[in-house]
Amino acid sequence: MEATAAEVDTAVRAAHAARPALADRTVRAALLRRAADLLDAAGERVIEAADAETALGPGRLTGELARTTYQLRAFADSVDEGAFLDVLIDHADPALAPPRPDLRRYKIPLGTVAVYAASNFPLAFSVPGGDTASALAAGCPVVVKAHPDHPATSELCAALLRRAAADVGLPDGVIGLVHGFRAGLDLVRHPLVGAAGFTGSVRGGRALHDAAAARPHPIPFHGELGSLNPVVVTESAAAERAEEIGAGLAGAITLGTGQFCVKPGLVLAPEGEAGDRLLTALTAAVSDTEAGVLLDHRMRDAFLDGVRTRAALPGVHAPVTPGAGGEHTVSAGFLTLPAAALAEDSTHDLLLEECFGPVTVLARYTDEAEIAAVLARLPGNLTATLQLGADESAGRDGAGRGGRLLADVTELAGRVVVNGWPTGVAVAPAQHHGGPYPATTSTATSVGTAAVERWLRPVAYQDTPPALLPPELREDNPLGLPRRVDGRAEPA
Amino acid sequence: MEATAAEVDTAVRAAHAARPALADRTVRAALLRRAADLLDAAGERVIEAADAETALGPGRLTGELARTTYQLRAFADSVDEGAFLDVLIDHADPALAPPRPDLRRYKIPLGTVAVYAASNFPLAFSVPGGDTASALAAGCPVVVKAHPDHPATSELCAALLRRAAADVGLPDGVIGLVHGFRAGLDLVRHPLVGAAGFTGSVRGGRALHDAAAARPHPIPFHGELGSLNPVVVTESAAAERAEEIGAGLAGAITLGTGQFCVKPGLVLAPEGEAGDRLLTALTAAVSDTEAGVLLDHRMRDAFLDGVRTRAALPGVHAPVTPGAGGEHTVSAGFLTLPAAALAEDSTHDLLLEECFGPVTVLARYTDEAEIAAVLARLPGNLTATLQLGADESAGRDGAGRGGRLLADVTELAGRVVVNGWPTGVAVAPAQHHGGPYPATTSTATSVGTAAVERWLRPVAYQDTPPALLPPELREDNPLGLPRRVDGRAEPA
Repeated sequence: MEATAAEVDTAVRAAHAARPALADRTVRAALLRRAADLLDAAGERVIEAADAETALGPGRLTGELARTTYQLRAFADSVDEGAFLDVLIDHADPALAPPRPDLRRYKIPLGTVAVYAASNFPLAFSVPGGDTASALAAGCPVVVKAHPDHPATSELCAALLRRAAADVGLPDGVIGLVHGFRAGLDLVRHPLVGAAGFTGSVRGGRALHDAAAARPHPIPFHGELGSLNPVVVTESAAAERAEEIGAGLAGAITLGTGQFCVKPGLVLAPEGEAGDRLLTALTAAVSDTEAGVLLDHRMRDAFLDGVRTRAALPGVHAPVTPGAGGEHTVSAGFLTLPAAALAEDSTHDLLLEECFGPVTVLARYTDEAEIAAVLARLPGNLTATLQLGADESAGRDGAGRGGRLLADVTELAGRVVVNGWPTGVAVAPAQHHGGPYPATTSTATSVGTAAVERWLRPVAYQDTPPALLPPELREDNPLGLPRRVDGRAEPA
Repeated sequence: MEATAAEVDTAVRAAHAARPALADRTVRAALLRRAADLLDAAGERVIEAADAETALGPGRLTGELARTTYQLRAFADSVDEGAFLDVLIDHADPALAPPRPDLRRYKIPLGTVAVYAASNFPLAFSVPGGDTASALAAGCPVVVKAHPDHPATSELCAALLRRAAADVGLPDGVIGLVHGFRAGLDLVRHPLVGAAGFTGSVRGGRALHDAAAARPHPIPFHGELGSLNPVVVTESAAAERAEEIGAGLAGAITLGTGQFCVKPGLVLAPEGEAGDRLLTALTAAVSDTEAGVLLDHRMRDAFLDGVRTRAALPGVHAPVTPGAGGEHTVSAGFLTLPAAALAEDSTHDLLLEECFGPVTVLARYTDEAEIAAVLARLPGNLTATLQLGADESAGRDGAGRGGRLLADVTELAGRVVVNGWPTGVAVAPAQHHGGPYPATTSTATSVGTAAVERWLRPVAYQDTPPALLPPELREDNPLGLPRRVDGRAEPA
């Protein structure tokens, strides 16, 4: 099953050879829509395959498939529109000193993209997922390194994507698939690979990031590695809605058995009566949650070990002990400790690392300075969440606490959620799914239409005769692209 | 003179502390304009200092200073306009499945930027240059690592920038300056540095790139390292205007004593009569060029050594031998060889590496296949230039040669010039000064208003109460920023 170096090479060469066929945006949009249609039509088989390999359950997988096909169609729409080509035209200006030539710039595909599939999303962040969809939208062929947790699902999805390619007249090579750890390294080091996208662990992602940077010709590596997703609950918020926040938090940490990259892993909640009520509500809701199945035994072992090690740290309590449920399941839980302990030295640093699965850490603070001290110790995150009181939300609390906390968590995260929960990552133009390292290894997003920007590079044409210009840059705008001409947006 | 680790740390901490002061875009624009005014006012002193240290001559330096202050003002205009903030607003849509929350995204500064000054541009790519201007425009304080070739010019410019900062009420720390090789490494490794910009050699740039990637928390490294800047002269172009092309090429390789990063380093010219006329014209023009002074003795030694080693390769001739002029000067020249020799094996690979100074390599081809074979061996470039015949330029040659060559060189370069020369890099929105590695280590540009994008990262706010939103993202658009709302551009 593991691809040899020669097989990786064959897949990359086939992808590389397919680049010219992807140059036509109309064909790319058709490919993405056809892929969505075929995935929908084969929905039952796809979900069955993914459920057999991941135990995520048909409910969650049905939603994930809908997200996947929505994503493919959203990228097709964005290919049609072409705003990501970022067309800029500056006409020659002989009056300037020095005189300015005619300059026309747009963005072109970076080449073959290596995609590393995630364990926790066998569809939406795997073979037919956002990295693949955005790379194809950009005009880049893709070679996916399948996740070892769902090889059959990967093969099925790759076959559907290849059928979509054939249906719109594209060569097979636009979608390659390889299996195996060694194949993943060979892939990121292949001279014809132009960029890579990754969703997974800090350890695996960092190794691939380092390999991409160490190449004779380094390539962009867009990796989503790990995130703690801190939540700050203010005293007023707890006083006003302790029960609602406790229940909401329980939902956010147990949804999908805690296997989302945006699961809140650290919650700063106040000491005192309101915080106690929050803890009571959280305890009740978490205790009521049924045990769930983690993706595989490796994940289950890592979860049980991670929870045990964390619970053994000094001063840490477990009001609801997360742990083994049945033979295959795990039960949700959470740990508590004084927030001050997190800030004083490195003893509790393990609590500042992501623990994949249905667990969170509730750190109880006694004043705002402790919040700031803990936030200052956090690494980068995909999300940060604030639960604020009504007056703080309205900027009427007198202390400006809402604005101050918003500014503090903005430093730490790529998406800030107020009075809600970070689980659920909408596919939208204004989405940003990324954040300071280790949340991501670049400043790009992997969700939403802006994800296509990762696979493009600009090229400028100077004084190029009209007959030779690509149609995207012609004066009469035959493709009707949005563009900026001499600094002004068109259509205006 | 060399900064100690403690001094680097002090400079970075002062810069880091200055971040909040740079948050106000009005102040940033004022800083950039004030800096331009002070540099203009001190023009004589600045040019004198740079001339004493670099021997570039007052003429070239006067032009470079004008470029520098133009650049500062252009970034000020772009700060006022705010398009780079890339404001996107998607309103909540409960009708979608799953329902979409309210999402508002813009771009924020990455933090303190380390700037590595270039030897060949003591102003425009050094302390007050494009990296500094674009970083300040983005809201990032800067610590510059001075180039050892012009320490006094660097100090003078840094003092003027700091005076500009004081004049607009900003702390000193927004512009730091350190000297020394070791200080440069300390800087890129400093935990509070958020990104780096570099212009220089492949060796130096690669070492810093690798250090940036190896950090516990890797940071974006935007380096411009080296470029051959190939030129292709077609048979028709040579037949139609051999003399004009020969003279133009001579100008492009001798301008500024060949010390521009976009100097053409390899020219593919046809064998035969038309190509011979081009060679004759080139010989005449290059022979007429006065000897020039290179930046320093290190550069002069590297040039003489580089030329000697290249000229000694088998089959290489030197119609005009580049070499030592007087005791301090060098004379321009060029080498020739059959293009086929470049394509057949690695014997001549040294000719595919940049040689800084007034020299180029004329590779004579016998057919179009040889052009393609040589282009296929080239690394990435900042520019590629085509000299086409009239029919080829108009797409009337029947063979589609112009379009084919344009597509081939687009693969290799960030800017394509047709029937002109790549020297002269206009500061304009549609400019792209970057290209596949080793031209640059990222897909970004270091010249033109888009250079600001290197120092920003997106952040999205989800369901954030209006009172807490940054003014850039408020519904009523109090700052009048260009933005896209629910997928539509505003102002529409």
